[in-house]
Amino acid sequence: MTDNFAARLETTAQEVAAALEALLSETVLDGEIARPGYLLAAMRHGVLNGGKRLRPFLVVETARLLGAPELAARRVAAALECIHCYSLIHDDLPSMDDDDLRRGQPTVHVAFDEATAILAGDALLTLAFDILSSPETDLPADAKLRLVNQLARASGIGGMVGGQSLDLDAERVAPDEAGIVKLQAMKTGALLRYACAAGAIAAGADDQVLARMTRFGEIIGLAFQLADDLLDVTSDAATLGKAAGKDAGRGKGTLVSLHGVAAARQRLDGLVEEAAELLEPFGGKAETLRQAAGFIASREH
Amino acid sequence: MTDNFAARLETTAQEVAAALEALLSETVLDGEIARPGYLLAAMRHGVLNGGKRLRPFLVVETARLLGAPELAARRVAAALECIHCYSLIHDDLPSMDDDDLRRGQPTVHVAFDEATAILAGDALLTLAFDILSSPETDLPADAKLRLVNQLARASGIGGMVGGQSLDLDAERVAPDEAGIVKLQAMKTGALLRYACAAGAIAAGADDQVLARMTRFGEIIGLAFQLADDLLDVTSDAATLGKAAGKDAGRGKGTLVSLHGVAAARQRLDGLVEEAAELLEPFGGKAETLRQAAGFIASREH
Repeated sequence: MTDNFAARLETTAQEVAAALEALLSETVLDGEIARPGYLLAAMRHGVLNGGKRLRPFLVVETARLLGAPELAARRVAAALECIHCYSLIHDDLPSMDDDDLRRGQPTVHVAFDEATAILAGDALLTLAFDILSSPETDLPADAKLRLVNQLARASGIGGMVGGQSLDLDAERVAPDEAGIVKLQAMKTGALLRYACAAGAIAAGADDQVLARMTRFGEIIGLAFQLADDLLDVTSDAATLGKAAGKDAGRGKGTLVSLHGVAAARQRLDGLVEEAAELLEPFGGKAETLRQAAGFIASREH
Repeated sequence: MTDNFAARLETTAQEVAAALEALLSETVLDGEIARPGYLLAAMRHGVLNGGKRLRPFLVVETARLLGAPELAARRVAAALECIHCYSLIHDDLPSMDDDDLRRGQPTVHVAFDEATAILAGDALLTLAFDILSSPETDLPADAKLRLVNQLARASGIGGMVGGQSLDLDAERVAPDEAGIVKLQAMKTGALLRYACAAGAIAAGADDQVLARMTRFGEIIGLAFQLADDLLDVTSDAATLGKAAGKDAGRGKGTLVSLHGVAAARQRLDGLVEEAAELLEPFGGKAETLRQAAGFIASREH
């Protein structure tokens, strides 16, 4: 990754974290909202954790490429990050993946308690829709409604949550290749696809550009998952920060386990190329998104 | 309750159940959504359970009083019921209230498993916002955005989920009267308040009428909780279908435990009167909502 790209990633992460910090502060500007302290602390623990903010970065960079207002794009990015973080809190629960650590910190149910972790996830999920629909998100009503509806689709039973459920099924009965592709598209792909679509919607892009950026987001999702699966096979625990080979060890099939490392790497290169082709009409302006595709396909995310 | 009112409650419950049945069917009209079967079954178990659909009834009747389109009102009602049902699924979990039965049926985590119950709740929460923001909900964009935003506020950290968190706190440190009032207004009041506000928003009511119906919903919420607290003290387990005196037994303070049964009954009568006064400008057209207030204050809900 180039220094310039790394700096941009870092700056956006900080800007989005600042937006999230404000959205999760004790006092809310309109003064209407009473916020129970313990629950708020749990939500903050699950969100303000130094994440790379990859999904927000894709929202912000797509929005920038297409000329969306910056503040609004940042709120859309923050809403999406709330969804991502809620899903991590719930995934980490004892009845799900039962993880005690995330980014080297105790997970929310460990740092607080299980009931509070469930509620913190629920509250973050809900907050995402609050943010998008709020008068403070300065976009046309139609755009906001589309952002709400597409986020609900991307994160609900037809998207992320549905994918998580298929993932639980996969521990009982191993899916075939089509099943793996579907599971991954829903569980991790849908939010990455949404990130790029959302940036375009915030910019008021026409249908053709929206379709192009949605497809770009899909490619990003596929590349992300493939890189993750490769990392799971090839890295050691120290690099990964979680038990390496964990997914494979639990018998979960991946495209890497089906077709091997070499074929997966080749496929990954193809995806990065396809992503670059989709950005061609935008010329040099799309350089950051082009680099984002390469970054995501690398082992660094 | 009059026969006429009972019939109307029953009819609306059936209409909303039919809407929910369609929204939770395997095949969705636009064909875009893949729905994992096990998760969908868990969602259906948690929603299609013969509930009285009190919140939907308030949406539909407020909408009818003020002239909102019926189909749209029913979708708004269904969305609200998704939120209510998700909250019951999560509240029943082992780390929360740990209830095995609801309406005489095994709770979702008992009938399925704990992880699936968490995901079913998440998916229902998300589906509520999908329904409201969908093009199929035939209301102006501004109205839909307000419905989304107010639902997020009513059900998030400043509303229902926040109230549930305060309720967990209350098991450790007993709240004072102000604390009890706040907890109840958030945990159960916010959704009932929303029900009446949502009917008005769907009807395109002006600010004055919206404020009036929102206040009506607030009163309904207070009456509902007070009737529930009275029931908890005065009924036996057979009538209630759950362990009687359960809340008091867990040391949770209520207005009944603070001021006694007689004072609570008097207060309840006052609330029903106040509700009726709020409906006066609408004359006979508001008879059903007037009866709804009486019904909610009775021990029958």
